[in-house]
Amino acid sequence: MVEIRIAKKLMGANDEIASGVRDLLREKKITAVNVMGSPGSGKTTLLERLVAFSKGRWRVAVIEGDLETSRDAERMDRAGVRAVQVTTGKGCHLHAGMVQDALSALEPDALDLLYIENVGNLVCPSGFDLGEDFRIVVVSVTEGDDKAGKYPPMFARADLLVLNKIDLLPHVDFDVERFETEAQEIQPKVDLFRISCRTGEGVDALAAKVAAAVAGKKGAGPER
Amino acid sequence: MVEIRIAKKLMGANDEIASGVRDLLREKKITAVNVMGSPGSGKTTLLERLVAFSKGRWRVAVIEGDLETSRDAERMDRAGVRAVQVTTGKGCHLHAGMVQDALSALEPDALDLLYIENVGNLVCPSGFDLGEDFRIVVVSVTEGDDKAGKYPPMFARADLLVLNKIDLLPHVDFDVERFETEAQEIQPKVDLFRISCRTGEGVDALAAKVAAAVAGKKGAGPER
Repeated sequence: MVEIRIAKKLMGANDEIASGVRDLLREKKITAVNVMGSPGSGKTTLLERLVAFSKGRWRVAVIEGDLETSRDAERMDRAGVRAVQVTTGKGCHLHAGMVQDALSALEPDALDLLYIENVGNLVCPSGFDLGEDFRIVVVSVTEGDDKAGKYPPMFARADLLVLNKIDLLPHVDFDVERFETEAQEIQPKVDLFRISCRTGEGVDALAAKVAAAVAGKKGAGPER
Repeated sequence: MVEIRIAKKLMGANDEIASGVRDLLREKKITAVNVMGSPGSGKTTLLERLVAFSKGRWRVAVIEGDLETSRDAERMDRAGVRAVQVTTGKGCHLHAGMVQDALSALEPDALDLLYIENVGNLVCPSGFDLGEDFRIVVVSVTEGDDKAGKYPPMFARADLLVLNKIDLLPHVDFDVERFETEAQEIQPKVDLFRISCRTGEGVDALAAKVAAAVAGKKGAGPER
């Protein structure tokens, strides 16, 4: 039972830090988006697309979570956006303390929109609040249409569900209806998006959704 | 520090059970293969292919690890092979106790080859010995050629590395050389296989490798 007590204690500590992060984000009117999905589902490419939509309109930064390497942060640098790489070593998810540290390196006074790319993992990240405003879960059509039912905790807490790589649909066996129906059974309020980060198809609808959230949080404040 | 002590204690308990599983497998001359990879990398389809190669030659069973559903075990049933489904709830990997329990349900006296399909996760399963003889790590070409460097613990302990879905290579940006070179930098002894579970290309070479291991472990015992 001691393991369970420890786990609860760790989760409690994370929730407390996440709550502090959320307070800071509210005070600074920053919208934070927690982006999750399997390795290779296309999270980084999606972010490259999304930050291109925000450029010149919002002040954007990205926190990149990976076990090793700073490749994803370098990709964000090349996309012209401020990025902080968090490497977790063997850690299978980000926790709120990592976001807290990264935020202090990112000058929150000069920020409207913060994307947090979690470690590629369809299981563990879902259990850890990072103080985000909402969650995007990314699944690619090459992963199979049975993933929502097999990994329900991730889908149960998704706000926006991105079905990515739809340009590959002619080459794989993937029933879009089956996938989306099952995801909605697990989380009836989830917003569905069908996207190809390769061709750009469908990205504008998702970007518009994010932009509405940013505008909403900034309220009457001036846009940049 | 208490969390670290607990983690070490849990890992120690797993290693002890894994050692017992390994002893049983040696005594019964059963070859066990731990199959790991991201959700949707093609582990179950690979196993459907591999068990087809073994049919009539070896007595085969499969342990299927998933958070929820018994879909994968049902697929194995349809492939005509004995299967035990282990559901982990929120658990992000199999541990040795689960294999121990499943083995007792599988009549180890009537078994030559045991495939263990781990939970779809490129991070956590690598840390847990299940008593297996060797490990197969499955990566699909749609996941991107940068995965070995970004998820090194999994690749550092891989014996056979399967690059799957090579039929999709014309439709994705994936540098096979880059991927394999990086994997070999992390684990120089890894055996590489390029496979399409969809078309069957390359599966025979992998099946031959598994067959050699089974024959080796059975030693002078009669084949069936």
